[in-house]
Amino acid sequence: MDSPWDELALAFSRTSMFPFFDIAHYLVSVMAVKRQPGAAALAWKNPISSWFTAMLHCFGGGILSCLLLAEPPLKFLANHTNILLASSIWYITFFCPHDLVSQGYSYLPVQLLASGMKEVTRTWKIVGGVTHANSYYKNGWIVMIAIGWARGAGGTIITNFERLVKGDWKPEGDEWLKMSYPAKVTLLGSVIFTLQHTQHLAISEHNLMFLYTIFIVATKITMMTTQTSTMTFAPFEDTLSWMLFGWQQPFSSCEKKSEAKSPSNGVGSLASKPIGLLECFSENVEETFCIVITGGC
Amino acid sequence: MDSPWDELALAFSRTSMFPFFDIAHYLVSVMAVKRQPGAAALAWKNPISSWFTAMLHCFGGGILSCLLLAEPPLKFLANHTNILLASSIWYITFFCPHDLVSQGYSYLPVQLLASGMKEVTRTWKIVGGVTHANSYYKNGWIVMIAIGWARGAGGTIITNFERLVKGDWKPEGDEWLKMSYPAKVTLLGSVIFTLQHTQHLAISEHNLMFLYTIFIVATKITMMTTQTSTMTFAPFEDTLSWMLFGWQQPFSSCEKKSEAKSPSNGVGSLASKPIGLLECFSENVEETFCIVITGGC
Amino acid sequence: MDSPWDELALAFSRTSMFPFFDIAHYLVSVMAVKRQPGAAALAWKNPISSWFTAMLHCFGGGILSCLLLAEPPLKFLANHTNILLASSIWYITFFCPHDLVSQGYSYLPVQLLASGMKEVTRTWKIVGGVTHANSYYKNGWIVMIAIGWARGAGGTIITNFERLVKGDWKPEGDEWLKMSYPAKVTLLGSVIFTLQHTQHLAISEHNLMFLYTIFIVATKITMMTTQTSTMTFAPFEDTLSWMLFGWQQPFSSCEKKSEAKSPSNGVGSLASKPIGLLECFSENVEETFCIVITGGC
Repeated sequence: MDSPWDELALAFSRTSMFPFFDIAHYLVSVMAVKRQPGAAALAWKNPISSWFTAMLHCFGGGILSCLLLAEPPLKFLANHTNILLASSIWYITFFCPHDLVSQGYSYLPVQLLASGMKEVTRTWKIVGGVTHANSYYKNGWIVMIAIGWARGAGGTIITNFERLVKGDWKPEGDEWLKMSYPAKVTLLGSVIFTLQHTQHLAISEHNLMFLYTIFIVATKITMMTTQTSTMTFAPFEDTLSWMLFGWQQPFSSCEKKSEAKSPSNGVGSLASKPIGLLECFSENVEETFCIVITGGC
Repeated sequence: MDSPWDELALAFSRTSMFPFFDIAHYLVSVMAVKRQPGAAALAWKNPISSWFTAMLHCFGGGILSCLLLAEPPLKFLANHTNILLASSIWYITFFCPHDLVSQGYSYLPVQLLASGMKEVTRTWKIVGGVTHANSYYKNGWIVMIAIGWARGAGGTIITNFERLVKGDWKPEGDEWLKMSYPAKVTLLGSVIFTLQHTQHLAISEHNLMFLYTIFIVATKITMMTTQTSTMTFAPFEDTLSWMLFGWQQPFSSCEKKSEAKSPSNGVGSLASKPIGLLECFSENVEETFCIVITGGC
Repeated sequence: MDSPWDELALAFSRTSMFPFFDIAHYLVSVMAVKRQPGAAALAWKNPISSWFTAMLHCFGGGILSCLLLAEPPLKFLANHTNILLASSIWYITFFCPHDLVSQGYSYLPVQLLASGMKEVTRTWKIVGGVTHANSYYKNGWIVMIAIGWARGAGGTIITNFERLVKGDWKPEGDEWLKMSYPAKVTLLGSVIFTLQHTQHLAISEHNLMFLYTIFIVATKITMMTTQTSTMTFAPFEDTLSWMLFGWQQPFSSCEKKSEAKSPSNGVGSLASKPIGLLECFSENVEETFCIVITGGC
């Protein structure tokens, strides 16, 4: 009855994350810890602190989602198998003789494989988060999006917070504001799976999981092979931004231009302003608002 | 049977906060966000961050009270109506063409009305917090005071914390220490409503709500019209302080005086000290302690 | 039937902490607050802030363990007797005329007695934490260790966090990393009591409590009388470190030596490096790894 595609997607969605994908996730997370400056020396000096940081990187998303739902943040410690697995990977990564793990991980194919598998766990986490939140708040779709997002990408928040407390990290307004690529893609996934969960998308869950996983793995591998650290959602974001705030946008872009020009205007700034506005106007029909607004200020 | 006053108070205490008072509260909160330097530009650059900040300002007290009672801090997201209302107000405040909302809000009568209505929600929050805490801890009056206080004035703590994480705000010992006027008046209200709830005040709840609301609305409007940013509880605080620590106070005030004088004393500081003490003594009979203590040091 | 020793240990383990040991704990905690620079002046200026800090010092471990298990962190406020006791001690410590309490506490025997009694409460807290965590997670031994540790020594984390928020404390990577003596001894106790609780130690609970209490009280008093601020677990730690990472250690020690020498080598650093390595080699047979690795880099 089912098409081969459907069977494949179903089989995929039933894959257990436990040994191999979890290992890949822990490996990528622990290697991220190790690449921080001073992390290797720190592990010798204070293994408990290093282990704690590694665990926060491995289980950060789960901890954040527990905090947001008022579940014990120590819950992850009750899963002994995963803790031991993550601890073993931390141990061999930091203390392996000849630094074999780091050397092995420095080969691109190994990194690609590990990162790709880590992205697969992201799908499972988002779905897990959305389902879990739904059991708390029936049809609380904002909560579902938030928990799916927190579980999939919240590790960054927890680890940044840890660095803040340790004094490693001086927060700046800007850093907090710009969302990283994983945060964006996880938010997108969280919205999609919530829509699917609340029956607003006419697609079965396993098909969606399959498609979304292919999407995030493919973009991740593309990003790694092409050495781009960000895969911009710029066209998509611009469209959404235009839909929500678009007819306002010209005002700000026009304002920026006149601001950029004003320093060179010297004394004649009042006289030359209309020219700047006219240039603005000639570029885009939508900018008729611009003159009205600036004139009204 | 009931007096007209009683009926009025009862009707008042049954007023629903939902559409209008909540709107006033969200408007005042969002306008407070918008007046922070750079907030408007930030909303264009990163709407999600701006929206998140606005929600923290609107629902901060509830989030803090949830954290303190180990309830999910995301609970407020499950109330879709209020979230949509607050989001709409955030949207029109930041993205309305010609900045109409800000211009409308700049008229004093509009501000007075909105601020007055926001103060009314404070009473409802305190009563809600006290009642809610009572359902957790029967007769746990310290918890009741704390939760009432957190729900009524805790937003400031949450938003300061957010600014700390974002790096906008460098905490200083002093800022943490001095309680703002809303914090003080909310603490007072929380104590009063807890006393009423535990049957230590011979006044019905609706009467107390009516009186307390009139008090806070009146003081708020007085403060706004007279441009004083603080309405001091100085006489009340001094009396309480005197009752608790009063017979000690002279020691410190005397010490301050002698400290203030000592720099000018030069070499003869030992010789001139008794004179300072005698002056001190002549001012107040209670300051007999003063000489004994300073002599003993 | 029971030996006198056993009876003594049993009687000891049934001692109630309530009035006297708790008083000693609160006294030591509040005196620690008072010795912070500026604390006494702050108590006059803002008694509520000072009281809040004192409560965090007195109940910090319990608050942290509540946070970790998603119980209301305000739970401690529901225990009115202990709150009033701690508040009274805060009050007399800060506001007693002639500063009698501080003067009394400055005598060494008083300090020894109070600190010894405070250490006794540590045992009770660890046992309480381990038992409490076990009721949540059957056989969750990592959680049990963590909660025992948090309740016994977590006050430091809470109070450091409070100082961070107040801006009194600039965190440095190093401070976060090195564990204090109380943290270490509490971790040890937490591990031991968890092993006892999960039937891995063939000793009864009351005997273990007795022995552990004697150990921590004795080390504390030794430390105070000999004026050493740390009682090193160095031999124990070194052994454990050697067992876990030992055959790796030479690499780092050798590296340090060659690093220490390299600045003086000047131009001939490449030429002289093998000599440093040979010296290294001659010290220890295990350091054969060292040459291989450094050569391979």
